[in-house]
Amino acid sequence: MHPVFKIVFGIVLLTGLLTFFYFDWEFLSKTSAQSVLSFSSSQGLKDKEIPDFPKINIGPFHNENPMPCTCQEADPANRYVPKDELDDLQNRRAEEFRQHQIRTGKENDVLILAPANTPLQYPIRGFRVTPMSKTLIPGLALQTRSRAVYKVSLRVQKGLLSVLDVQEGEQVDGQNEKNLSISSSNLQQLNGLLNRVTYTSTVYHIKTQDLAYFSFENHEVLFPIEIRRQSVPVLFDMGKDVNSQIIIADDSLNPEKVVGDNIEHYVMPPAQGWFAGRNLAVSQVTTKYFLWVDDDFVFLNETRIESFVNIMEAVPELDVVGGEVQGDQFFFKLEYEEGSSEEGGCITRFKHNHHAPLPGFDGCFFVDGVVNYFLGRTDAVRRVGFDPFLKRVAHTEFFLDGLGDLLVVTCNGHRIGHQKHSHTNKYHSFRHPPESDSQNKMTHHFFKNHLKCMQY
Amino acid sequence: MHPVFKIVFGIVLLTGLLTFFYFDWEFLSKTSAQSVLSFSSSQGLKDKEIPDFPKINIGPFHNENPMPCTCQEADPANRYVPKDELDDLQNRRAEEFRQHQIRTGKENDVLILAPANTPLQYPIRGFRVTPMSKTLIPGLALQTRSRAVYKVSLRVQKGLLSVLDVQEGEQVDGQNEKNLSISSSNLQQLNGLLNRVTYTSTVYHIKTQDLAYFSFENHEVLFPIEIRRQSVPVLFDMGKDVNSQIIIADDSLNPEKVVGDNIEHYVMPPAQGWFAGRNLAVSQVTTKYFLWVDDDFVFLNETRIESFVNIMEAVPELDVVGGEVQGDQFFFKLEYEEGSSEEGGCITRFKHNHHAPLPGFDGCFFVDGVVNYFLGRTDAVRRVGFDPFLKRVAHTEFFLDGLGDLLVVTCNGHRIGHQKHSHTNKYHSFRHPPESDSQNKMTHHFFKNHLKCMQY
Repeated sequence: MHPVFKIVFGIVLLTGLLTFFYFDWEFLSKTSAQSVLSFSSSQGLKDKEIPDFPKINIGPFHNENPMPCTCQEADPANRYVPKDELDDLQNRRAEEFRQHQIRTGKENDVLILAPANTPLQYPIRGFRVTPMSKTLIPGLALQTRSRAVYKVSLRVQKGLLSVLDVQEGEQVDGQNEKNLSISSSNLQQLNGLLNRVTYTSTVYHIKTQDLAYFSFENHEVLFPIEIRRQSVPVLFDMGKDVNSQIIIADDSLNPEKVVGDNIEHYVMPPAQGWFAGRNLAVSQVTTKYFLWVDDDFVFLNETRIESFVNIMEAVPELDVVGGEVQGDQFFFKLEYEEGSSEEGGCITRFKHNHHAPLPGFDGCFFVDGVVNYFLGRTDAVRRVGFDPFLKRVAHTEFFLDGLGDLLVVTCNGHRIGHQKHSHTNKYHSFRHPPESDSQNKMTHHFFKNHLKCMQY
Repeated sequence: MHPVFKIVFGIVLLTGLLTFFYFDWEFLSKTSAQSVLSFSSSQGLKDKEIPDFPKINIGPFHNENPMPCTCQEADPANRYVPKDELDDLQNRRAEEFRQHQIRTGKENDVLILAPANTPLQYPIRGFRVTPMSKTLIPGLALQTRSRAVYKVSLRVQKGLLSVLDVQEGEQVDGQNEKNLSISSSNLQQLNGLLNRVTYTSTVYHIKTQDLAYFSFENHEVLFPIEIRRQSVPVLFDMGKDVNSQIIIADDSLNPEKVVGDNIEHYVMPPAQGWFAGRNLAVSQVTTKYFLWVDDDFVFLNETRIESFVNIMEAVPELDVVGGEVQGDQFFFKLEYEEGSSEEGGCITRFKHNHHAPLPGFDGCFFVDGVVNYFLGRTDAVRRVGFDPFLKRVAHTEFFLDGLGDLLVVTCNGHRIGHQKHSHTNKYHSFRHPPESDSQNKMTHHFFKNHLKCMQY
């Protein structure tokens, strides 16, 4: 039995700016490369004493700098930038990208191999600590044949190591330091000590990583320590009653008063813009989901919002479920290659392409973008946001910004109608802006999304 | 030399609702527990054939369900919920929390140990694939003493394995299946085959994980495969000129026209609310940073916005840098314990406490919350958002929602002034709402942040 739900209708602009792109391209497939066991120097919060990690030759396909990409026939994304401004723009973009790489932890993104035949047991995944708090390191052990003395060492960079409750006669060197050594003539006693090793990060950071080196005689292994501040959940109460609220973001030239019990009307500066209006509208939603509709959609007898909700409730990972507007179930796939740091990435859009069916839901498919009639998970959509720079014509941009963060599905049979269009000249001048609008948008993309080229 | 920057001034409500909390509590420290090598069944997108992972006994502090927490003297967060509604609310909250755990990948959050003395080499971290695209598995190798025949097996759950370019006479079983076996009488040839093993995920998901089992004779190791759709960068161009824009979110009862060259004035439904206004204002920012000010702040001769920018530019991981309002440099630390799934978490706020100094910046300290005069990184602040439910009195809530996601710093010597207060009765009735307002807020927190108790 389904809980009764709260829905918010979002109606954005009374100027009703909407556009669809209708190009089609062949699908390309590439694998991604990552940096291998190397540590590149960069600014940001790091311990300046971190040494280079040892490099292991593991094959030609891993390299530190991703391969440049191509868009086949697309022109470069920077083609509308005036020649005398291009260098400056390129430099500013390189600087923003450098900061982006720091923020997204690219320097921690290394491949680590477990070497064969080491007598050491250690945690390879899931060992997480909160910043600056002492935590037991799980699973450290030595398993080796009989020796007179057993000695292991542990070394970290962003924290301090200690052994809890060191007893008389137990040999521990480097207590509360970066380098710790434990010795014993008894293997069981050594493993007992290894069971009591703690790590305390000394850097304050909410999301970073340390690397631990664990060694015995000529064997050395590496393992990651995730330093992570815990997040607090943010949940939405769906309540018990249907609660429909209409949020209107209005950038009309001459806004009219709109009143009603379930209506929230926000007046924007005139012609402030399409995506600015969308971002405003979603910023005011207080419910778990919102239904996106443009102001010129028409609800039909067959329109069933609850069926959208059923799908989202059954598959909590979903973020957007799209339907069909007057027979047009527009959806698309985006192919993205990261490209090189200098040139940027390559985007290709494939209309009416999907990734895979949604298991358990006939007629639903994973895609990267849908038509403007969809149910959105409020927190997920807000985290991506609608770029308020985009004033007149935009659609794919939201899904591009959300690539990798939004799980999007299109489903057959969820229909809404569309008013007949009747344009006034004044509306037309906004709805079909001059060429410069799309040129400025391309330049905006070149910078914002760090692109080399983009083709629809 | 610093780039010239764009700044946006954000002025939220002309009703100027602002509040500070002034309680003080002792600091508690706890470590966090995680689930160990166990796979709990849940709904959501998963391959229903995934078997339980083997459990390894590694000590008493790791358990599947985090320990309950306590807030010392704080009353329960659900104390204002009417008794006849409490069960329903609790059940709805449990359901939302269950979905939250699925969305945040808790089922993938397992601790994996590398066993000692295995003759296998394999990747323990950093092996990432894009969904449904064939990728070479790096670093697989067997290093063992001479045998007549060498045979290794590889097993995955959410994908298919294959060996590239299998030659005549090379023994590969399970090509393009979940279970792959490779045999050879020659160790070098076997390792050559292992160098050509590929993985292709069969589930479409933008962020999930598979586990691979790699075995030889009686040895078996596990390693994670990250399945991740790549995100596109979203960068902001700081430009070359100073560009100051003032964004006003106005929920006055009788809004007045506000005009000016650099002013964007948004009119909200009357008394729509404080955080609704804040969320609206930041939804309209188009620049990399924004400066938050309340409408009753006063710029002083000594006010230096650029010094905030300098700090943020030098430390790209920072999200919020706070200053001081008329001698009040309010900042605080939040202590958060996850608590048990049933009861929820515990939050304690410590006024004028900080975590650690910001390296390289005298007078700057890491905190969890600051005063309402701060420079914010637009994308980071928007991703957290200001909960539009909070209509009258709120401050800490933003930082609570942002815990673990926002890196916040307070710095000495960044001052702005404050108007003298002169309240009208009408303003007073909004500024100091009845007791029911804070009771409803506590109930909101109980659900939204999955809390057991909260104390300021």
